[in-house]
Amino acid sequence: MASDRATTHRRLERMDELVSLCARRGFVFPSSEIYGGINGFWDYGPLGVELKNNLKQWWWQRVVRERSDVEGVDSSIIAHPRTWDASGHTEHFSDPMVDCRACKKRFRADQLEDAGKCSAREGSSEHDLTEPRSFNLMFSTMIGASEDAAAQAYLRPETCQSLFNDFKRVREASRQKLPFGIAQIGKAFRNEINPRNFTFRSREFEQAEMEFFCHPSERERWFEHWRDERMKFHHDLGLDPARLRTRSHADDELAHYCKAAVDVEYEFPFGWQEIEGIHDRGDWDLSRHSEYSGKDLGITNPETKERFVPMVIETSVGIDRTCLAILADAFVVEELEGGESRTLLQIHPRLAPIKVAVLPLSKKLAEPAHTLSDGLRKRFNVFYDDAGNIGRRYRRQDEVGTPFCVTYDFESVDDGCVTIRERDSMSQDRVSIDAVSRYLTERVEPAA
Amino acid sequence: MASDRATTHRRLERMDELVSLCARRGFVFPSSEIYGGINGFWDYGPLGVELKNNLKQWWWQRVVRERSDVEGVDSSIIAHPRTWDASGHTEHFSDPMVDCRACKKRFRADQLEDAGKCSAREGSSEHDLTEPRSFNLMFSTMIGASEDAAAQAYLRPETCQSLFNDFKRVREASRQKLPFGIAQIGKAFRNEINPRNFTFRSREFEQAEMEFFCHPSERERWFEHWRDERMKFHHDLGLDPARLRTRSHADDELAHYCKAAVDVEYEFPFGWQEIEGIHDRGDWDLSRHSEYSGKDLGITNPETKERFVPMVIETSVGIDRTCLAILADAFVVEELEGGESRTLLQIHPRLAPIKVAVLPLSKKLAEPAHTLSDGLRKRFNVFYDDAGNIGRRYRRQDEVGTPFCVTYDFESVDDGCVTIRERDSMSQDRVSIDAVSRYLTERVEPAA
Repeated sequence: MASDRATTHRRLERMDELVSLCARRGFVFPSSEIYGGINGFWDYGPLGVELKNNLKQWWWQRVVRERSDVEGVDSSIIAHPRTWDASGHTEHFSDPMVDCRACKKRFRADQLEDAGKCSAREGSSEHDLTEPRSFNLMFSTMIGASEDAAAQAYLRPETCQSLFNDFKRVREASRQKLPFGIAQIGKAFRNEINPRNFTFRSREFEQAEMEFFCHPSERERWFEHWRDERMKFHHDLGLDPARLRTRSHADDELAHYCKAAVDVEYEFPFGWQEIEGIHDRGDWDLSRHSEYSGKDLGITNPETKERFVPMVIETSVGIDRTCLAILADAFVVEELEGGESRTLLQIHPRLAPIKVAVLPLSKKLAEPAHTLSDGLRKRFNVFYDDAGNIGRRYRRQDEVGTPFCVTYDFESVDDGCVTIRERDSMSQDRVSIDAVSRYLTERVEPAA
Repeated sequence: MASDRATTHRRLERMDELVSLCARRGFVFPSSEIYGGINGFWDYGPLGVELKNNLKQWWWQRVVRERSDVEGVDSSIIAHPRTWDASGHTEHFSDPMVDCRACKKRFRADQLEDAGKCSAREGSSEHDLTEPRSFNLMFSTMIGASEDAAAQAYLRPETCQSLFNDFKRVREASRQKLPFGIAQIGKAFRNEINPRNFTFRSREFEQAEMEFFCHPSERERWFEHWRDERMKFHHDLGLDPARLRTRSHADDELAHYCKAAVDVEYEFPFGWQEIEGIHDRGDWDLSRHSEYSGKDLGITNPETKERFVPMVIETSVGIDRTCLAILADAFVVEELEGGESRTLLQIHPRLAPIKVAVLPLSKKLAEPAHTLSDGLRKRFNVFYDDAGNIGRRYRRQDEVGTPFCVTYDFESVDDGCVTIRERDSMSQDRVSIDAVSRYLTERVEPAA
């Protein structure tokens, strides 16, 4: 085994390094891979699903459970189709498309640089393009049995509209007073013309959204509160502060109903891209749903008897995008003294898919090592591995971000201790077997 | 406040009692309710989402994390359409439908007793029916931009087919050897003709499925293992054993590829109904996906060099159905001495949406009570309530299954203790404020 001092390290430079690692180790790979995949759809494997669930649970803990002023919900992906009339999606949620009359291909009018050469005009890059036409990005489907009674419905293109649909019911059931929020995590779908950048722009994705309802006089204060809270969250995930920034939308970028908008951006190898948006949506959503549903979603101030439509501050984070940022940020290749190199994922222990690997130094030690790993498994996600030399087993864990490796050796039988190796520093502690669970709890779980 | 001795108690008799409680208290209510709802789609409110997440996490802990022989995944809802050719869904996943020539309505041929009177024939129950025709229950949609390149795809009608699609990738990435399983929790969709029985038969629902791959010689052993494991799980959830049973499928009920099948059934107010299925699916799935994808999904035994297609034991539980069973099972109305009654949900503490309510006896005690509840909130889902008389506040928590109420009273300021009241027995313990977190941990969290 090479010396475990790192002489140089470099970070992720090209996405294909990460895409390859993700497939090989079972983080993320194309959906329906044996059928050649399906463009814009991805499956999370055994390690990816743990990372994603850890991220979702952290968000839920922070935004819903630790606060008394935010309620969670889990709404259906298919909502009443009038929802999308009220939100404006049926009319406006579309991209401008152009067709090439020669090669019959279709392109986004605002991304013509991606269009390549016209295959119908040998050696030419010149397409023969139509005028742009709009193409709605919602996936549609039909509900019901009989042709005539069947209703066209849509897979939601964002999770937030259900939070407005459920506003009245949730407020009454939870007896919340303003200001308060409603939050959910769930799948959304957009029929993107050009899915790209791995899981960054896909057709099926997961969002964690929160709508915070407040009195008009308090909107600026709450916008600032949530902008700061959400930025703090991304820092707490361990993302490199130098690769995180906020970007305020200029006035001419804002949607007509939007008073202020800030994006949280991360610097991926393919550039700075939005991973979260914090928007002051004003009273647009509740007013529109009041109008379209005929249900008054306004509120009466019990003291002043003033009647008003609450203002909405929205926080909307892409779960897949944030997972991708976490993986891209954590990817490090170290050159070690002795010429060896190691790839590691410096993932925050709370996000790491595997918390601890139990590695007996020899297969002869399998029985007590199994006893140890089975005990830890009730509390932590444990990986047991007794195959191959110990250095190689460490490397395999480094590569998937396991923060701690517990080595059970021949001395352990006598002294009742094991060696715990930390991923990033490769430093080692000798710890009593009885104390391993507490040692790990202090380092991988949030303070209670 | 009435005496807190229960003289009689009765269980849920009619679903409408539960439907009403679920809407009023924010467990489950119709999706898009302000638009009149959408038949077969439901939203989980603040309490429902916590119950559902607790159930899903318990299942994941039991089936995936505590076992070294099961890997989790999270696959896309839209899979490659060939998946459904291989599984047989494109051809066979349909209900026989008949039309009435007079009233133009459509019915399931096997449920004609639900058809009611023919509205076109005054006073008559006689419809004028066509011959049955098949109606596919998969929701379909179109993927891609241009009309001609667009591909018809489907919302998955079950989550398990992705587990077969991902079998090869997961086996290689995780380096699992047979026997091992792959599991996931996720949404599935069926265009049911007659959604009914609250959330029991809906069009959008959540499944937790596990496919266990083994050598042909071991299938019977693993079928029995999983049947027993899964039945134990439902008992551990706290469901009344008298309302749980297994039902083995008779030979003429079995799908042609199925060697054995057992349903776990629960006795709802609307009768005994399946909440989980454990099926021996043989080598049907992997053989079909090998054939349709052209990828050999067989395995070589490294010792004997024997080549074989693994056999599959499947466990498939409906998350919404199990939530419904939990709620129906937990519903109790007690008549108390003194003529008062209380409705309570005797939900297992691990499943309860709110673990503890903090109730200051007076609003004057709000500050120290808030300090206590904010401290507990980092670890537990806490509800704080200082409004109304204490008996009424207890009743509100009973009704949503909160296992513990902590009352902060005027003595608490001096003696540093609070009263903890248990939901079912209404017994009270005086506990030091410092010890409340440990007291609750021992009672609401699984042993680590």
